[in-house]
Amino acid sequence: MSGNTIGRLFTVTTFGESHGPALGAVVDGCPPGLALTEADLQRDLDRRRPGRSRYTTQRREPDRVEILSGVFEGVTTGTPIGLLIRNQDARSRDYERIRDRFRPGHADYTYTMKYGRRDWRGGGRASARETAMRVAAGAIARKYLAERLGVRIRGCVTQIGPVRAARVVWEAVEENEFFFGDPDQVARLRELIERLRREGDSVGARVEVVAEGVPPGLGEPVFDRLDADLAHALMGINAVKGVEIGAGFACVAQRGSEHRDEITPQGFLKNDAGGVLGGISSGQPIRAAIALKPTSSIRIPGRTVDARGEAVEVVTEGRHDPCVGIRAVPIAEAMVAIVLMDHWLRHRAQNGEVEPPLAPIPPQA
Amino acid sequence: MSGNTIGRLFTVTTFGESHGPALGAVVDGCPPGLALTEADLQRDLDRRRPGRSRYTTQRREPDRVEILSGVFEGVTTGTPIGLLIRNQDARSRDYERIRDRFRPGHADYTYTMKYGRRDWRGGGRASARETAMRVAAGAIARKYLAERLGVRIRGCVTQIGPVRAARVVWEAVEENEFFFGDPDQVARLRELIERLRREGDSVGARVEVVAEGVPPGLGEPVFDRLDADLAHALMGINAVKGVEIGAGFACVAQRGSEHRDEITPQGFLKNDAGGVLGGISSGQPIRAAIALKPTSSIRIPGRTVDARGEAVEVVTEGRHDPCVGIRAVPIAEAMVAIVLMDHWLRHRAQNGEVEPPLAPIPPQA
Amino acid sequence: MSGNTIGRLFTVTTFGESHGPALGAVVDGCPPGLALTEADLQRDLDRRRPGRSRYTTQRREPDRVEILSGVFEGVTTGTPIGLLIRNQDARSRDYERIRDRFRPGHADYTYTMKYGRRDWRGGGRASARETAMRVAAGAIARKYLAERLGVRIRGCVTQIGPVRAARVVWEAVEENEFFFGDPDQVARLRELIERLRREGDSVGARVEVVAEGVPPGLGEPVFDRLDADLAHALMGINAVKGVEIGAGFACVAQRGSEHRDEITPQGFLKNDAGGVLGGISSGQPIRAAIALKPTSSIRIPGRTVDARGEAVEVVTEGRHDPCVGIRAVPIAEAMVAIVLMDHWLRHRAQNGEVEPPLAPIPPQA
Amino acid sequence: MSGNTIGRLFTVTTFGESHGPALGAVVDGCPPGLALTEADLQRDLDRRRPGRSRYTTQRREPDRVEILSGVFEGVTTGTPIGLLIRNQDARSRDYERIRDRFRPGHADYTYTMKYGRRDWRGGGRASARETAMRVAAGAIARKYLAERLGVRIRGCVTQIGPVRAARVVWEAVEENEFFFGDPDQVARLRELIERLRREGDSVGARVEVVAEGVPPGLGEPVFDRLDADLAHALMGINAVKGVEIGAGFACVAQRGSEHRDEITPQGFLKNDAGGVLGGISSGQPIRAAIALKPTSSIRIPGRTVDARGEAVEVVTEGRHDPCVGIRAVPIAEAMVAIVLMDHWLRHRAQNGEVEPPLAPIPPQA
Repeated sequence: MSGNTIGRLFTVTTFGESHGPALGAVVDGCPPGLALTEADLQRDLDRRRPGRSRYTTQRREPDRVEILSGVFEGVTTGTPIGLLIRNQDARSRDYERIRDRFRPGHADYTYTMKYGRRDWRGGGRASARETAMRVAAGAIARKYLAERLGVRIRGCVTQIGPVRAARVVWEAVEENEFFFGDPDQVARLRELIERLRREGDSVGARVEVVAEGVPPGLGEPVFDRLDADLAHALMGINAVKGVEIGAGFACVAQRGSEHRDEITPQGFLKNDAGGVLGGISSGQPIRAAIALKPTSSIRIPGRTVDARGEAVEVVTEGRHDPCVGIRAVPIAEAMVAIVLMDHWLRHRAQNGEVEPPLAPIPPQA
Repeated sequence: MSGNTIGRLFTVTTFGESHGPALGAVVDGCPPGLALTEADLQRDLDRRRPGRSRYTTQRREPDRVEILSGVFEGVTTGTPIGLLIRNQDARSRDYERIRDRFRPGHADYTYTMKYGRRDWRGGGRASARETAMRVAAGAIARKYLAERLGVRIRGCVTQIGPVRAARVVWEAVEENEFFFGDPDQVARLRELIERLRREGDSVGARVEVVAEGVPPGLGEPVFDRLDADLAHALMGINAVKGVEIGAGFACVAQRGSEHRDEITPQGFLKNDAGGVLGGISSGQPIRAAIALKPTSSIRIPGRTVDARGEAVEVVTEGRHDPCVGIRAVPIAEAMVAIVLMDHWLRHRAQNGEVEPPLAPIPPQA
Repeated sequence: MSGNTIGRLFTVTTFGESHGPALGAVVDGCPPGLALTEADLQRDLDRRRPGRSRYTTQRREPDRVEILSGVFEGVTTGTPIGLLIRNQDARSRDYERIRDRFRPGHADYTYTMKYGRRDWRGGGRASARETAMRVAAGAIARKYLAERLGVRIRGCVTQIGPVRAARVVWEAVEENEFFFGDPDQVARLRELIERLRREGDSVGARVEVVAEGVPPGLGEPVFDRLDADLAHALMGINAVKGVEIGAGFACVAQRGSEHRDEITPQGFLKNDAGGVLGGISSGQPIRAAIALKPTSSIRIPGRTVDARGEAVEVVTEGRHDPCVGIRAVPIAEAMVAIVLMDHWLRHRAQNGEVEPPLAPIPPQA
Repeated sequence: MSGNTIGRLFTVTTFGESHGPALGAVVDGCPPGLALTEADLQRDLDRRRPGRSRYTTQRREPDRVEILSGVFEGVTTGTPIGLLIRNQDARSRDYERIRDRFRPGHADYTYTMKYGRRDWRGGGRASARETAMRVAAGAIARKYLAERLGVRIRGCVTQIGPVRAARVVWEAVEENEFFFGDPDQVARLRELIERLRREGDSVGARVEVVAEGVPPGLGEPVFDRLDADLAHALMGINAVKGVEIGAGFACVAQRGSEHRDEITPQGFLKNDAGGVLGGISSGQPIRAAIALKPTSSIRIPGRTVDARGEAVEVVTEGRHDPCVGIRAVPIAEAMVAIVLMDHWLRHRAQNGEVEPPLAPIPPQA
């Protein structure tokens, strides 16, 4: 278990480096009988794809995914699903200059100390390029959850640097190049990102994901609580430095009489819990938020050391996103889908015969 | 894997309910040769123990732990370490009144929906009482990490409701009954907690943990990054709603030129990364923070439904902490210790023969 | 994962040494709603118990098991079940003489090389005494399988040294002190075992287990096939040197036209497959056999070395079984129960919604 | 964990079906710094390859493996190694006639009952074709074990039907088309296999594997003993019905004074234990044997039912091995290599700092 597999029953194993021949994944544990084609995966891959807008990295990757196994006559068979994307636009020469210096804020130094060597081409395994496979795998989970359980998973950016969403208009999210929740801020964002690009700098972002229609009962106390597994999956996305469920850090200043979500036969009265109580889903929407750091791949020179430990200066040329958070929306959605799918199977395994003594309490209207 | 085990190589499995006969744990994977006695575990258990001060629950539990296996002639043998604490002061009658109603903000409803039944006595398995075993298990990890690697793990409360620590004075933390980092705020906290107690209400808290002396190289990309596993372990503590590493959510408003921690031969210049780059420890101190919600066990009546789905009112009598965050400090430290220990073993397994090409960069002075 | 846990969804973790204070286990993943008391576990424990007949070790252990958690109001709750047995009749002084010499055929030497030390009292963790917890845990699986799926698991000894069972009369198995399948051989066995006891020697045994009523569909290709997991569980019993499924090694000399079990609408025509095809249960009885070596704890002196690597002679005094295979019957049954239970949950997780296109083919009449 | 992954620290996940577009694997946990090229994998793949001799299936597959990740500048990086083999000579039309009937002795029926559907083309996932990836993955383990620990793993066939090897001449094994250990029997074998081919029948085989140079200390009591994990890996090979370690089933008739391997300072005196004591390697050669059933893919008509449950007759045309055991030699070697590699890493994780108190006892000369 070298960390390249996530999930216990619905497992996703990824492989591949930024500038290697290909990226791949094995999705194991998908129930049989799900209609599945490559087009089902391509939609989310296209949302994450680099070179999609002028506000993201200019690397051009078609990211066409091939299903190598596990699907027969258009339907999943219950055997492992192999996925493959060939890399096409890798320009390793951009990285030759930094092959023996450790970019601050990057994994260059830590990979070198851990493995004794590093693949310096475009970040190697540490590159966000690896997340393409998570998106492809997540699309399978997402399709199953939607078709069998009616779960809908949506995400958007709610803050970039100083610009915050005052509200979330879901219909507008896919309409703007930042996946931003609040359409009124898009003009300001364009200005901000253009300025950053000129200055060769970058900025952080906040991304929120909501999963509606999740049945009550998912989550395994005490360690593999649903929120704990979501935190694991979301903190495992490149550049993430914080995870919140429901009220998140705002709960520190709350009173107990204020935080608890009261219940009536007509439904929960609000959702500060973010859909999870005692680590188990309550039937309310799952609400999670993440903080993504500003990428350290910037053109502004920084101090660092080289492989001999000597002081040098580093500048990242290459092709980079001024705000990596923008492309994180489909990735975060995919990770939530994978975790929910896994917990659905785990729940069904142990509790397949349970008949709860009452009808589910409706979520907050 | 029903969620009661954490870790891959250093594994901790806990069992037991709040009002059952006993709590227990199995700690598997501890290397042989570590001197270990029950006294080594008792120190942290005593820090977490209920009834320790007037500001925490008045349940009286001596929490004397017994080592049942895995230690011979005062030294670990490499076989699993069985731990046991008998429950003594369980007053189940306090809970009879709420046995068929779902306290809002509690796991009562979700356990019922998941398992078709619930142990209503004192929260059953969902009770924070279970965390005693995490503290005992964590003490083993902590002792190993301190003796073999020189790792020091310390935690404190840095915010309770509106009261924030302006600074952290480590020497003062164990001196005050709130494990608060800033001794200047203790008087205000006493006042706050007394008021809450009178009002029958509760409040949230922020807890920070710092691990110093962690060698570079711990963490398994891409899913089991060190920060991802810390997030899993910390979000898995009862009442936690948010986890941050390093700068945490503050990074959303940062520029890349500001966030990245520059490096010189004399050491890193600061630590916004919180000691983790690309999911792997950098040798800088690991810095994590968590948000704990205000407990929902309060005396102020709340609206809910009962097991028949009908509207009722609920009041939690029992004996409860007005701020559960206070006792979370040793628990959070224990979880960090368990994760670090696990990753030390995982790292050693795959990379036991690695000789990094340069000496470690010193942490920020 | 230091090897003290078996199962993926129905997991059994054991701890404890032969002469330590206690043996224990955590059974995790048992579905909620199963009626369970200590008496349900005691029956199988009593069958395995030492000192039960004059043909097994004379160590006197009542082996009274205590359920510490996971059961409330007489029914499992879905939370982990903690089990405990206190050791009572440990006579460590019997072992002082061999504490620094490695008994040939024992784990003394290998534990020392692996862990750098060993618990020399009665075999420590390597003692068959640990298997008491497997029997207790297996009894839970067995009860669930019997009540919910109608599975019946039975085992018996079919060979001891030169004495082979010509047939298996299930009704007679529990009637004789050897759990032998063929009542006509019992007198010969008594003679054999008495002679061995006088000579201070021991003998091997063959044990067979049959599980009837197992539904088709259990087993996860390609690595965790049902037969592969049975082989893992059975080879993991102390002293086992071989495992067979169905025809076993006899298939080497068979033709394909002879080995394959033909099918008619009335049922399979025979069962050389032992109930497993392609690693998945077929609905026929699962048939497994194991070979248990003669214990090396004998009174006949043997050559070995001591902890300094010098040549010495060793004799095992203590109290030992002349044929450890006899007490292995309930252990083997328990391991089969644990594996089947685990695979039932695994199957339900992934295939909970599957409706096979035809009715199950009946097993061989 | 749907069963397509083996290993805990050195993990191999395979995907792909007999007649799908490709076979693949992810090998995770390989230490960094191992020189590795595709040629290193090809040698064993060629030994297993179909169409290699007139005594194996005539399907023509070049089985050229591509390394997609985890290797940079000719050396492993510590990141997952993706492997791919495109299928080329799949003739699905051979199988159309049996797509709705269940071949006796095959997985057709059990896959249908488990998954509700089956990939009928050439056995789908249940085909031995999947084992190509095991051989490729095993070659990585094998290279590491050979270069770093000096381990040598060799296998041969020792019985086919009635023909038994009287001895094993390792030099002769690769010289004959049956990987048979005893060159004196090869002429008889040719005759036997030719006769079977004419008759359209098949026969079973016994394969033995020996691993020399394995250091003492590998294996994790009590469930993941080295022998238990070998049994799991070997019983998981298609067509295997029995596994033996060391003396195997012969131990049933042995006395304790006969079975135990006595020890002298010059070394062990024999090796009935097969190199494993108490589940931990002793430093003696690991000796394992497996029984492979005669394939049920034969031309002699057999009785079965179809997907509607009605009685039909079935004949397997296609291209099949009269003795599948022949090609099992490299597969069995690969599985042994994978298990040893995994246990080497597991051992190093927990016991990396252990210094045994004495020098290893030499194996039997």
